[in-house]
Amino acid sequence: MSFDDIINRHGTHSAKWDMMEPIYGVPAQDGIAMWVADMDFRAPECIQNAVAKLHDHGIYGYYGDDTAYRQAICRWMDTRHGWTVDPAAIFTTHGLVNGTAVCVDTFTQPGDGVVLFTPVYHAFAKVIRANNRRVVECSLVNNDGRYEMDFAAYDAQMDGSEKMLILCSPHNPGGRVWTRAELQGVADFAKRHDLILVSDEIHHDLVFPGAQHTPMPLIDGIEDRLIMMTATTKTFNIAGCHAGNVIISDPILRQKFADRMMGLGLSPNAFGLHMAEAAYSPEGAAWVDDLMVYLDGNRRIFDAGVNAIPGLKSMQLEATYLAWVDCSGTGMTREEFTSRVERDAKIAINHGPTFGTGGENFLRFNLATPRALVEQAIERLQAAFADLQ
Amino acid sequence: MSFDDIINRHGTHSAKWDMMEPIYGVPAQDGIAMWVADMDFRAPECIQNAVAKLHDHGIYGYYGDDTAYRQAICRWMDTRHGWTVDPAAIFTTHGLVNGTAVCVDTFTQPGDGVVLFTPVYHAFAKVIRANNRRVVECSLVNNDGRYEMDFAAYDAQMDGSEKMLILCSPHNPGGRVWTRAELQGVADFAKRHDLILVSDEIHHDLVFPGAQHTPMPLIDGIEDRLIMMTATTKTFNIAGCHAGNVIISDPILRQKFADRMMGLGLSPNAFGLHMAEAAYSPEGAAWVDDLMVYLDGNRRIFDAGVNAIPGLKSMQLEATYLAWVDCSGTGMTREEFTSRVERDAKIAINHGPTFGTGGENFLRFNLATPRALVEQAIERLQAAFADLQ
Repeated sequence: MSFDDIINRHGTHSAKWDMMEPIYGVPAQDGIAMWVADMDFRAPECIQNAVAKLHDHGIYGYYGDDTAYRQAICRWMDTRHGWTVDPAAIFTTHGLVNGTAVCVDTFTQPGDGVVLFTPVYHAFAKVIRANNRRVVECSLVNNDGRYEMDFAAYDAQMDGSEKMLILCSPHNPGGRVWTRAELQGVADFAKRHDLILVSDEIHHDLVFPGAQHTPMPLIDGIEDRLIMMTATTKTFNIAGCHAGNVIISDPILRQKFADRMMGLGLSPNAFGLHMAEAAYSPEGAAWVDDLMVYLDGNRRIFDAGVNAIPGLKSMQLEATYLAWVDCSGTGMTREEFTSRVERDAKIAINHGPTFGTGGENFLRFNLATPRALVEQAIERLQAAFADLQ
Repeated sequence: MSFDDIINRHGTHSAKWDMMEPIYGVPAQDGIAMWVADMDFRAPECIQNAVAKLHDHGIYGYYGDDTAYRQAICRWMDTRHGWTVDPAAIFTTHGLVNGTAVCVDTFTQPGDGVVLFTPVYHAFAKVIRANNRRVVECSLVNNDGRYEMDFAAYDAQMDGSEKMLILCSPHNPGGRVWTRAELQGVADFAKRHDLILVSDEIHHDLVFPGAQHTPMPLIDGIEDRLIMMTATTKTFNIAGCHAGNVIISDPILRQKFADRMMGLGLSPNAFGLHMAEAAYSPEGAAWVDDLMVYLDGNRRIFDAGVNAIPGLKSMQLEATYLAWVDCSGTGMTREEFTSRVERDAKIAINHGPTFGTGGENFLRFNLATPRALVEQAIERLQAAFADLQ
C-alpha cells in the first residue's frame, strides 16, 4: 500500500466524492474533491486487520469490556503526547460533533454565550445555534498569514453571559499549532471569564515536523474547567466509524457528562471500538509518521504552486492537511474566485464564510489525497487564474 | 452456514459471553450465556458481503447520499409489513436506546410522567429516569401465561402529568404480538390522555408462524402523535453497528425531532448504513424466514423442557427469541431460584425485577443460540431443579 495509490471512491457512498456534484456542481466525472475532511488513503494495515477479523467472526453483537480499548487510548496519549490519562476519564461519543453537542447541552443553558475563535470548524457554530445558545465570535488576528489571538480585544467583548469556550487545537482552518504560551493565555482567559473550556484536539496527531503540539490538560490551572476531545477518526481516516473521545479529569464535570450520556442513551458502536484499539498501536504510530512525511510533501507542492499565482496565498500549515487559501489579493469578488475554482478548475472546496467571521475571502483545500491529484489541482488552478500572471 | 454452527464468542468483546462471569459469576469456561439480546448466529451472507466490500475498499470516510439506504427501509416496510413509509420520515439514531432517549428528551419535560406497560424492556425506565422524568408503571395482566392490557385500570391511574407512552410491540418480555384491537386500545388510550406514543417495534420481524404483527402506523387516528422505532440490528444480529430508525409521519413532531438530532450532533456511522441497506433485501428476507423456523424449533424444545419442571412455566412466545419463565410455582425465594440457574445450571440470564413491576418472579432466557446449547441448558435446568420432580 502506498499513499500514491489512486483509489476510486466514486459510488462508495463517499460524501467527499459522491456529493460534490449535487452540492457544488463540480462534475463527478473529472472533478477533484478537496473539501470534506477525510483522506483518500486506505487505513493502515492494523485497522484493516481488525475489520477483517470482525468480518471473519461474522457475529456483530453487543460489545462488552472496553478495558483494552481504554488502555490503548491511555498508552497513545502517554507515548505520543506525554499526557497521562485516567481510563475512567474517557467517554466515547459518536464522533466529536456529537461530543461537542453533548458538552454544549450538558454544561450550558439556552441563551448562554459560547465563545469561538473564528474562523473555525463550521460544525461548532451549527451545534451551538441548534441548541439555542449564542455564538460569540472572537476574531483571530491574521498576522501576515498566521493566526494569533488578541486576548485584550476578547476581554473587552465579554459581557458575562458567556459560559463556554470551544478551542480548536491545533486550529482548523489555518493549521496553527498553538504554543504553550498561547494555550496558557487561553486557560487564563477561560478562568478570567469563568468559562468551561472544550478543547477539540482532533488534529493533534497531524502535526508537521518543526511544530510541537501541547495537550491542553498539561497547561496549569485549567483542569477543573476542562473537557478535552480527541479521536482516531481524523488521524487514521476512519471517520465513517463515528467514534470520538471526550476526556474529563474533573470529577464534578465528569459525573455531569456521564449522567447526560446515560440520559441520551449514548454508547459506542463495536466497529469504532475495535478499530480505535487497533489504531492506537505501534503499527498505527509508524503509519502516522509516514503519513505526515507524505502530507508534508503535498503541502510543499501545493503551497509553492498556489503562492506562485499572484493574489492567492496559502497559509503555512503547522498541522492538519487542510490548506487555507487567502484569495483577497486577487481583487475578485468571492463569487468570482469561487467560480474559477469550482467551474473552471473543477475542484470542490470548502467556502470560507462557513467558518465564520474572518473566513470571507478564503477557500479550504483538502490535501490528503495522492500527490498526482494535488499536482493536477495546481495545474488547473494556475490555468483558472492564468490572467493574473 | 448453519444456525447449528457453534461459534466461539469468548474473547471477542462479546458483552453476552465475556461479561457473564464478571457480572453474574457464571463461569466463562462452561457457562451458557442466555442473557444479552443478541444471537450466536453469523449475520446473513448479504451483510457479510457488505462488510467484506467495505474492508476491500479500505477507506472508511464520511458517508454521503443515503437515498438507497432509505429506499431499502421503505421497501422492507412495504413488502414485509404492508406499510408505506415516506423516505423523509426516517431518522437514523445510534440504536433504539438512543432513539428512545432522544424521544424522551425532545417531547417531554423534566418531571413529566412517561407510561410503560410493565414488565418491559429495562432500558426504557433507565432512560426515563436519567432524564429526570417519572416512570409511570401500568401493569400488564398475566392472564394464564399471556400478557394483556387493562385500560380501565390504566385510565384510573392517570393524573394528567403523563405526557408520553412507550409501547413495546411485539412485547419484550413475554413475546406478545399485540392484536389490532389491542393496538387500537393503546391508540385510544394515548389520545384520551393526550400522550405522545413511542412504538418500539424492534422485534417486528421476529414473529412466529400463526401470529401477525400490525405496525402501529396502520392503526386509525394515531398518526399525529406517533413515533415508530425499528431497526435491522435485532432482526439480523448486528446490534454492534448501533443503527436504529425513528420514523415520524407527523410534520410537526418530525421537525422537532430533526432539530434535536441536529442539536445533539447525531448522524449515523457508515457501517450501520451499509449493513442495513444490505440486510433489507430479498436475501435478508429469506434468511429471516429460515431464522424463524429455527427459532421456532428452539422455542418448542425449550418450552417443553422447562414446562416439564414442576413450578416453572415458560410463556408461549408469539414473537422474539426471549423466553420469559415464571418461577413463582417453585415456592422458592427469588434468590434461591436465581442461584439454581446461575450457580447450579451455570446459565447467565436476565433477572425479572429489572423489567419493572410484574417481573419479580421471572427469569428471561435468550434462545437465539445453536440448538445443542438450548438442549444442554434444558438438561442443566432439569438437574438443578431435580428435587421438584
